[in-house]
Amino acid sequence: MTDRVVLAYSGGLDTSVAIPYLAKQTGGEVVAVSIDLGQGGEDMESVRQRALDCGAVEAVVVDAKDEFAEEYCLPTIKANGLYMKQYPLVSAISRPLIVKHLVQAAEQFGGTHLSHGCTGKGNDQVRFEVGFMDNNPDLKIIAPARDFAWTRDKAIAFAEEINLPIEQSKKSPFSIDQNVWGRAIETGFLEDLWNPPTKDLYSYTEDPALGNAPDELIISFEGGKPVAIDGKKVTVLEAIEELNRRGGAQGVGRLDMVEDRLVGIKSREVYEAPGAMVLITAHQALEDICLERELARYKRLIDARWSEEVYDGLWFAPLKRSLDAFIDSTQEHVTGDIRLVLHEGRVTVNGRRSDHSLYDFNLATYDTGDTFDQTLAKGFVELHGLSSKIACKRDRDASGK
Amino acid sequence: MTDRVVLAYSGGLDTSVAIPYLAKQTGGEVVAVSIDLGQGGEDMESVRQRALDCGAVEAVVVDAKDEFAEEYCLPTIKANGLYMKQYPLVSAISRPLIVKHLVQAAEQFGGTHLSHGCTGKGNDQVRFEVGFMDNNPDLKIIAPARDFAWTRDKAIAFAEEINLPIEQSKKSPFSIDQNVWGRAIETGFLEDLWNPPTKDLYSYTEDPALGNAPDELIISFEGGKPVAIDGKKVTVLEAIEELNRRGGAQGVGRLDMVEDRLVGIKSREVYEAPGAMVLITAHQALEDICLERELARYKRLIDARWSEEVYDGLWFAPLKRSLDAFIDSTQEHVTGDIRLVLHEGRVTVNGRRSDHSLYDFNLATYDTGDTFDQTLAKGFVELHGLSSKIACKRDRDASGK
Amino acid sequence: MTDRVVLAYSGGLDTSVAIPYLAKQTGGEVVAVSIDLGQGGEDMESVRQRALDCGAVEAVVVDAKDEFAEEYCLPTIKANGLYMKQYPLVSAISRPLIVKHLVQAAEQFGGTHLSHGCTGKGNDQVRFEVGFMDNNPDLKIIAPARDFAWTRDKAIAFAEEINLPIEQSKKSPFSIDQNVWGRAIETGFLEDLWNPPTKDLYSYTEDPALGNAPDELIISFEGGKPVAIDGKKVTVLEAIEELNRRGGAQGVGRLDMVEDRLVGIKSREVYEAPGAMVLITAHQALEDICLERELARYKRLIDARWSEEVYDGLWFAPLKRSLDAFIDSTQEHVTGDIRLVLHEGRVTVNGRRSDHSLYDFNLATYDTGDTFDQTLAKGFVELHGLSSKIACKRDRDASGK
Amino acid sequence: MTDRVVLAYSGGLDTSVAIPYLAKQTGGEVVAVSIDLGQGGEDMESVRQRALDCGAVEAVVVDAKDEFAEEYCLPTIKANGLYMKQYPLVSAISRPLIVKHLVQAAEQFGGTHLSHGCTGKGNDQVRFEVGFMDNNPDLKIIAPARDFAWTRDKAIAFAEEINLPIEQSKKSPFSIDQNVWGRAIETGFLEDLWNPPTKDLYSYTEDPALGNAPDELIISFEGGKPVAIDGKKVTVLEAIEELNRRGGAQGVGRLDMVEDRLVGIKSREVYEAPGAMVLITAHQALEDICLERELARYKRLIDARWSEEVYDGLWFAPLKRSLDAFIDSTQEHVTGDIRLVLHEGRVTVNGRRSDHSLYDFNLATYDTGDTFDQTLAKGFVELHGLSSKIACKRDRDASGK
Repeated sequence: MTDRVVLAYSGGLDTSVAIPYLAKQTGGEVVAVSIDLGQGGEDMESVRQRALDCGAVEAVVVDAKDEFAEEYCLPTIKANGLYMKQYPLVSAISRPLIVKHLVQAAEQFGGTHLSHGCTGKGNDQVRFEVGFMDNNPDLKIIAPARDFAWTRDKAIAFAEEINLPIEQSKKSPFSIDQNVWGRAIETGFLEDLWNPPTKDLYSYTEDPALGNAPDELIISFEGGKPVAIDGKKVTVLEAIEELNRRGGAQGVGRLDMVEDRLVGIKSREVYEAPGAMVLITAHQALEDICLERELARYKRLIDARWSEEVYDGLWFAPLKRSLDAFIDSTQEHVTGDIRLVLHEGRVTVNGRRSDHSLYDFNLATYDTGDTFDQTLAKGFVELHGLSSKIACKRDRDASGK
Repeated sequence: MTDRVVLAYSGGLDTSVAIPYLAKQTGGEVVAVSIDLGQGGEDMESVRQRALDCGAVEAVVVDAKDEFAEEYCLPTIKANGLYMKQYPLVSAISRPLIVKHLVQAAEQFGGTHLSHGCTGKGNDQVRFEVGFMDNNPDLKIIAPARDFAWTRDKAIAFAEEINLPIEQSKKSPFSIDQNVWGRAIETGFLEDLWNPPTKDLYSYTEDPALGNAPDELIISFEGGKPVAIDGKKVTVLEAIEELNRRGGAQGVGRLDMVEDRLVGIKSREVYEAPGAMVLITAHQALEDICLERELARYKRLIDARWSEEVYDGLWFAPLKRSLDAFIDSTQEHVTGDIRLVLHEGRVTVNGRRSDHSLYDFNLATYDTGDTFDQTLAKGFVELHGLSSKIACKRDRDASGK
Repeated sequence: MTDRVVLAYSGGLDTSVAIPYLAKQTGGEVVAVSIDLGQGGEDMESVRQRALDCGAVEAVVVDAKDEFAEEYCLPTIKANGLYMKQYPLVSAISRPLIVKHLVQAAEQFGGTHLSHGCTGKGNDQVRFEVGFMDNNPDLKIIAPARDFAWTRDKAIAFAEEINLPIEQSKKSPFSIDQNVWGRAIETGFLEDLWNPPTKDLYSYTEDPALGNAPDELIISFEGGKPVAIDGKKVTVLEAIEELNRRGGAQGVGRLDMVEDRLVGIKSREVYEAPGAMVLITAHQALEDICLERELARYKRLIDARWSEEVYDGLWFAPLKRSLDAFIDSTQEHVTGDIRLVLHEGRVTVNGRRSDHSLYDFNLATYDTGDTFDQTLAKGFVELHGLSSKIACKRDRDASGK
Repeated sequence: MTDRVVLAYSGGLDTSVAIPYLAKQTGGEVVAVSIDLGQGGEDMESVRQRALDCGAVEAVVVDAKDEFAEEYCLPTIKANGLYMKQYPLVSAISRPLIVKHLVQAAEQFGGTHLSHGCTGKGNDQVRFEVGFMDNNPDLKIIAPARDFAWTRDKAIAFAEEINLPIEQSKKSPFSIDQNVWGRAIETGFLEDLWNPPTKDLYSYTEDPALGNAPDELIISFEGGKPVAIDGKKVTVLEAIEELNRRGGAQGVGRLDMVEDRLVGIKSREVYEAPGAMVLITAHQALEDICLERELARYKRLIDARWSEEVYDGLWFAPLKRSLDAFIDSTQEHVTGDIRLVLHEGRVTVNGRRSDHSLYDFNLATYDTGDTFDQTLAKGFVELHGLSSKIACKRDRDASGK
């Protein structure tokens, strides 16, 4: 049987040249799979045609924007998914979706190998390959950039050697990954941690200092899911897109951080994710009124671990799925409206309302109508502190008084 | 022996009237203790005199600003202390300091009782009383507002009845607690969660939309402690004060949240803490480059728990002290400089440098000089994912596919 | 409307006398509810009759043995529920079941109050009352032992005063709570922690040193639930009962511990729970082969927290329910057989087999057939240790070496 | 410069043959380092001589028994170090000690490489190599069994080929690692998880069913450290040795488990560690009376993570060191006596006493002298349960409305 390599195909130079390269290396055929995650840019049909022009025996294009929003972005909202309390997992949640479609294509087109263009020092190779193994461990994996030290220069030389019908675009100084959930930027001068980002890095967001008029909006959630903006029903995808626009116009969602990669190194990353940051901020504010205190405290630990699991490429792993079960069980009553103001890079929650709120005005108020029985507090305080009181006394006594 | 009640005395109407009231209730004497935590306002000597005028047998004033900064604010910086990921524990860390001084005063002046003015539905009663029990369980506790349902109206009536030499200020609609670390505001109309805060709530911060020119600064840390701003040596207190000024001018550090109180209810709180937020943001960014990944991940859990312990009034409790031991052990190498821009309410880190940094340019760079051996990655990825791969296969096999 | 107090009625002296006492205190009527949890002893119909003889207007008896096993013991098995790593929550899981039936009875018989016989320094008052509030916060709560300082001596005097038709049994020196899941014993001489338990404390277990012949058995689980013993189908209740017999005969399941009570004090407790300990041991051994490593590691944290929540009387609380969701999601593949030997107080697992096992002989073996690719290890080891290596080098460099 | 390989040398066939083999492979010289960890067996001087006979240019023997007990076993006692709640880390804590001495020898004798005899599918390669990298990343690492697929058969053939002066012992069916802290056994027939262990596996322990008379003893701790047995002062090493003897005679400390290895596979392991299990059991029982409740609850999480870190080869890693800081801070008052009975494989704690105990008879007793104020409980219960009560009501209203 002829080997068939199913390749995650972006349409760019590197993966285009990889088509004939992989065919040559394996003596087999290449199936190109391209996924529309809302990354924008080129028309997907042109991408598909280019794959065929470069020699792919099959070229598949999948519009996965809604699937991505519903099955990958929404769980991230529910988990308030921020790696290191900051990064909304832009690339991390897109890999498992791509994995699913590559494995499906392999099963459909008789693929024997799966392939991606990632290097050996990043997170994405791990996310792809652990995903591959989790979904179909019988398929072999080829990662030319890592396994054959395949570089851009070699790719260009090879393209010329075989007269590949591809225009050699001028190399962008930026390495970018983007989808509807956000945009990740790496570039040489950021590798000096003392250098600030420059304005040309950004594409999803305006400069927050531009001084647009404030944008006030109301996001409605049902069971943890955003369902309306300013009273107009939206899908999750529409919510992200609208908030990318409105948040982006206000310069919301820029991040500049040093990140702990799974492979053991630290790296500087710049992100912009306006819609993601607005949605997570609003979701969290709604949880603050809809989740009971001890549940909320514990969920913060679960959320943090969820984010680490997803960052670490373990989307399909058993622990991630059980963390999902915990999180899902908490979302039933995360229903209500959050009012926010987007302005000058700030996302400010200034109103919450919910039929499922645990806030009880009559217990909280200091005015007439107070139903809180203060006489209960004395007993509470004494027993709440009793074990500490006994221990503190012992500590003093033992240390010689 | 005559009872002697040591009272936490703010100088305001309520605690002023409490002096004769407590004397009457206990048939004893009252010692007033006032602590300067940088809350500003009235001269402390006037406060002391008023206590005496109201009948205190002793009136003590303590300038604890530096002690507060070094022993309470600094640990909060090291712990990135944010309750519910937001609130920098403004009131929560001031109570244990006040407790210490009240207990000392009781031991010095023959106190038999300790007293505070808090109500029975807030957190501060817990913080005071658990602190009292932890530091001297033999002293009795009186909390007139809670134990005798002592209200402002009753206080005013009593003041008139006994001709107390105190001016009856017009009642502020706001309930405020403030110190150098921040300012907490509660007020009636905020008890409707849909109402936005109004501008008159704020005192430490300007409106972020005022449009001042950006303020760029460099904060230097040694072992987790801020030691210089823009190259000029500062004490922790000076750092907080300067950043309150500069952050406040940019509208940095405003918070509007619904909080889970220890007594089981949710309450709406507005805070402003410009210095605190700038320092914690900078400290965290420095940790991002100076702490090893697994330590950093675990410290986030420890930090969260530390914040809950402190919020819950357990500053002196054994667990809090062991969390401190963990945190202290992580700070040795949190040394270096963070450059930030304060502007329009935003605190943006845009540069880090440190001799203790774990960031390794040669491992991270994609350019010439790369020392990362990518061939190691394949083995890593396969074994990193092996247990999940086996489990996913079992799950599919068992579910009959 | 006449008050109606729904009382958790055990049939013993204290709760018998409580019937007329509560009627007198409230000027109302008493409904007695008795639950059969497999505690053995008296016939439940006699208990019911005694309640009526003592003046109850209604007396209800519920056989809840199967409900208890399926809905309370089984979740404890799934959670490997051991408070402080030792105590299988014998009393803790019975209280929420009793709560449910008391609240149902109140709703059925027009109850206005709920009542229990617990004192104010134990855990059970908390479990009852938080359960009551969680299930019906409108019902008032009366706890005579705590609220009226109602003691055994007062009860006896009151019984004589009103000529209550009840025999005054000689006071047992032991305070005992028992059900099919186990037996809890407190008694005066154990309050000296240096005193060893005496043989007369025990009832569910023989002396382990008796030297019975070893008892080997196989327990089969499906989805975490025990379904067969030695190949014979059993309900959960039957499994517990059979293992109480067989484990008890071997002296399995005795515990002597100092426990951290929820009310802040430490107390000495002796337990015997042969069936519980055998089932949890077997379940855990099966999890060891059926749960993926990272899931298993995290589940241990979840299990520990679950046990604390249940111990602390929070069976119905939101966090406990979300922990259940996590745990349930892990049990699907906990299916297979565990072989154990019960002998001389020891429970020894010496065989496991499962179609859902994650143990892979071909990966594990050192003999022919080994499929583990050892060349992968080098890369794994280097990247697994990379972040620590960088940090250790920094630490040495920074400390001046 | 000539390469010099510093080899962890056991004296057995494999590492003996490795001496000339490594010399040949590297064209360099071999330095043999043998560590006495109380593993017993051959005289260490004979081991040293054999290394020289096999061609080592230097052969070093280190008596590290006390160092091992004080610096590796004692922290394990303080952490109640049981991986997967069972395994007392017998091999895991010996590797970092060996690492330290190998690195020292390399620095002393001009070593350029470090070498060990472990295979590529076990944990010990990770522990060695991460330890090497943490202590001196400049030294190269050679692992012949893994890197050159060096097997026993090849070793024997090579020994014959070069006429190595070594007797070829009959291959034991068991793979064993032992030291004073315990003994680990793997063997072919245990790879079938349904096979029970056979009696010939054991060496440190007698059959628990032998029926020796019970052995009652008192272990005294100071600050978490065992300092006396039955009133006689002991070093940590002496404590372990004596309890190995006395526990071993009673069949205490046998384990049969399926373990989650770091490299992603599950493996069957049999251990015997009588002294370790007695000491950890006693230490834990003392902590139960000397640690405050919330500290004890949190320490259980810390202990579990400590055990995972150590198991995973991260003894020198930053997180492990900060966990140590937490644990050390908890041990100050873990001082007192524990009385245990060793009998028929059981370790039964039946008495505790300590001047540092937090158990308060007067609070705990139900007899005369009770100082617990039960009236405090009502307020405690209501506020302890308040947030859950509000949430349960919301849940019912929302689902039932």
